[in-house]
Amino acid sequence: MSEPRVPVPAGSDFTIDNLPYGAGDPGDGPRPICAIGDHVLDLRSLAEAGMLPPEAVESFGEERLDAFMASGRPVWQETRARLVELLTTDEFDRLPEGVLRAAGEFQMVLPFRPGDFVDFYSSLEHATNLGRMFRPDSEPLLPNWRHLPVGYHGRASSIVISGTPVTRPRGQVKAGDDPPDLRPTAALDIELEMGFAVGPGNDLGTAIAIDDAGDHIFGMVLVNDWSARDIQRWEYQPLGPFLGKSFATTVSPWVVTMEALAPFVTAPPVQDPQPPAYLRASRDWAIDIQLEILLASSVMREAGADPVVISRTNFAGMYWTIAQQLAHATVNGTNARTGDLYASGTISGPDPGSYGSLIEITWNGRDPIGLPDGSERRFLEDGDTVILRGWCEREGTGRVGFGECRGTVVAGGT
Amino acid sequence: MSEPRVPVPAGSDFTIDNLPYGAGDPGDGPRPICAIGDHVLDLRSLAEAGMLPPEAVESFGEERLDAFMASGRPVWQETRARLVELLTTDEFDRLPEGVLRAAGEFQMVLPFRPGDFVDFYSSLEHATNLGRMFRPDSEPLLPNWRHLPVGYHGRASSIVISGTPVTRPRGQVKAGDDPPDLRPTAALDIELEMGFAVGPGNDLGTAIAIDDAGDHIFGMVLVNDWSARDIQRWEYQPLGPFLGKSFATTVSPWVVTMEALAPFVTAPPVQDPQPPAYLRASRDWAIDIQLEILLASSVMREAGADPVVISRTNFAGMYWTIAQQLAHATVNGTNARTGDLYASGTISGPDPGSYGSLIEITWNGRDPIGLPDGSERRFLEDGDTVILRGWCEREGTGRVGFGECRGTVVAGGT
Repeated sequence: MSEPRVPVPAGSDFTIDNLPYGAGDPGDGPRPICAIGDHVLDLRSLAEAGMLPPEAVESFGEERLDAFMASGRPVWQETRARLVELLTTDEFDRLPEGVLRAAGEFQMVLPFRPGDFVDFYSSLEHATNLGRMFRPDSEPLLPNWRHLPVGYHGRASSIVISGTPVTRPRGQVKAGDDPPDLRPTAALDIELEMGFAVGPGNDLGTAIAIDDAGDHIFGMVLVNDWSARDIQRWEYQPLGPFLGKSFATTVSPWVVTMEALAPFVTAPPVQDPQPPAYLRASRDWAIDIQLEILLASSVMREAGADPVVISRTNFAGMYWTIAQQLAHATVNGTNARTGDLYASGTISGPDPGSYGSLIEITWNGRDPIGLPDGSERRFLEDGDTVILRGWCEREGTGRVGFGECRGTVVAGGT
Repeated sequence: MSEPRVPVPAGSDFTIDNLPYGAGDPGDGPRPICAIGDHVLDLRSLAEAGMLPPEAVESFGEERLDAFMASGRPVWQETRARLVELLTTDEFDRLPEGVLRAAGEFQMVLPFRPGDFVDFYSSLEHATNLGRMFRPDSEPLLPNWRHLPVGYHGRASSIVISGTPVTRPRGQVKAGDDPPDLRPTAALDIELEMGFAVGPGNDLGTAIAIDDAGDHIFGMVLVNDWSARDIQRWEYQPLGPFLGKSFATTVSPWVVTMEALAPFVTAPPVQDPQPPAYLRASRDWAIDIQLEILLASSVMREAGADPVVISRTNFAGMYWTIAQQLAHATVNGTNARTGDLYASGTISGPDPGSYGSLIEITWNGRDPIGLPDGSERRFLEDGDTVILRGWCEREGTGRVGFGECRGTVVAGGT
């Protein structure tokens, strides 16, 4: 691909091969935008100037990406090709004033409005680890796990944009033989996840066939599915997680499109047993996304210290792919709607350095991690900042990254 | 209360003491409406004519009730008082033409847009029955059940209005020692529930105190939480129901307000142990709502036979009240939003004639029920119509009913 005419700093997540979409507010209201290096294209202004495909113009008049996401893959592809053209040819010199601006001038908002939020449980390693800790007396992996992508509905209202403070939740906790009581969680955790956002939905009573999944998946974001393990442990049987998860879910502001991720698609792990036909795709769907979790205490932040990496893993190791997840989630005729968010479940690799949650990294507190300020962590303390990062890299193409998904824990009221 | 100037047929659910709200389309688009007997008040036209409180005018310009629901209890009360005045005094003669119309002229649509859907599990009898059937080798009631209202998030996209056909879902089913396979459910069931809809929400990071619940609950609807038991049984551990429930949830079109239900509030069952302080209300919150489930096969419908009552129960017997549900669901700081739907869970009484689902009524198929057409039912067949009804009655006040919540099962594709 040609070089963009706007400088892209070395190591930037937002090369010309990425062009992720978001929604940002430069002061007079949110609008669809696109990132390139440290700059942002105001897509509404660009559309109003007649420089984008006619099919995309109306949707860029909206505050968020939902209308553009609903417009479908041909419009996505045409728009992407046009943006590359505008950024790499002499047309760049004719961009209207104010269309290309410093990224810092925009206050990012949620890029789309999730109508429903589904959270899967698709890492074999994570499901096994949690099974060992939550159900120590039985097989860690339940009999259904290798036959279908286990998932459940989470709360959509508390999905927040990167940077939103996360208030430590209260909830009923049962400790030992004491009666349960209401208290702030003492086991606040993170879950490193990726999520995909739905473009065009399906009608109620129909299913999305696995080989049609690509027409329905617009792009992906980083997801931190904050969890209160003590609340979750007491409440979650028999109907699943509820208040232990519903207090906050943070997403990254930039949606990286499936077009940008295409060069990084790879073979998923072999599935044994082979899943039923409706879960067998005719092409690969795993994606080689490198991921890391960083942590900084308030003491570290005040001292100007960098956050430390506490885990590194890769999305490609997930047992169930996003195409399998969407095909499964709609096989009963449920309607997915534009903007629905389907998260992967915690992404854990095979060893503690690649686990996607503190409960796994510290093995439920048995093996605390040390921070540069001399403190230890089993779970999160007030003032801790967690940052998720994700990116794709390979020879011959520019870096395609997700930016970051950040949140700082604040004490709750009493 | 005075007599309304519009005739209300004997036995109507929609007396002057009810005045439920809905959204209906007379041909040129949905709008907020109010039922009285067999008639409907077009609230948008009434507002445009300057005959409703100024605070309510803008919200009745919307298609559905959400804006009115968000406006808060003082506006609800003022509007209700004004509607009574318009219907019972000489002002009735000055209603503009077309404001009062036959109910049949309106196509009902979903009265509000649920952003999130929570389903509880608040009947002691239902939870015990299901525990016996799904986990025969352990205590039917799990240790947390008497300490908090167990609940989970359901799917909002597939909430549909009464009358919408319900397509028999497909899903993975595991039978005996065979590998699981994809098939249409052979155990399609109903769940008789009541749901409450949120008026003003709360901010993320705050909780709704139980004694403030009345400021946040707008009204109630009948809910049929259709369930595919074979799909549910295979998938639901450890994260709860997913595809066994997500294919359809039917709600009644009329929202009966908490004002209308107030005369029927009664004492809930005694809770043992006493719940934690945040779940103790300073007033009663149980509601004496009589409920019934009716069933008609396609053969019965074609023969012109009436549907038969297969269960009768009462909402007042629920162990956990709606105020407890809302206080619990937000105690962790989750934000409820206007239009969110919180359903009760299946409402079952102490004996089979009062169970709220077929799996309980037939004890998982062991005791099939006979229909007047000579057929038997363990679970639902294609062509079956299920009708839920609910109403409140007592001396000295008019009947306050919910109309009906109806759905007919249709075969799915292959």
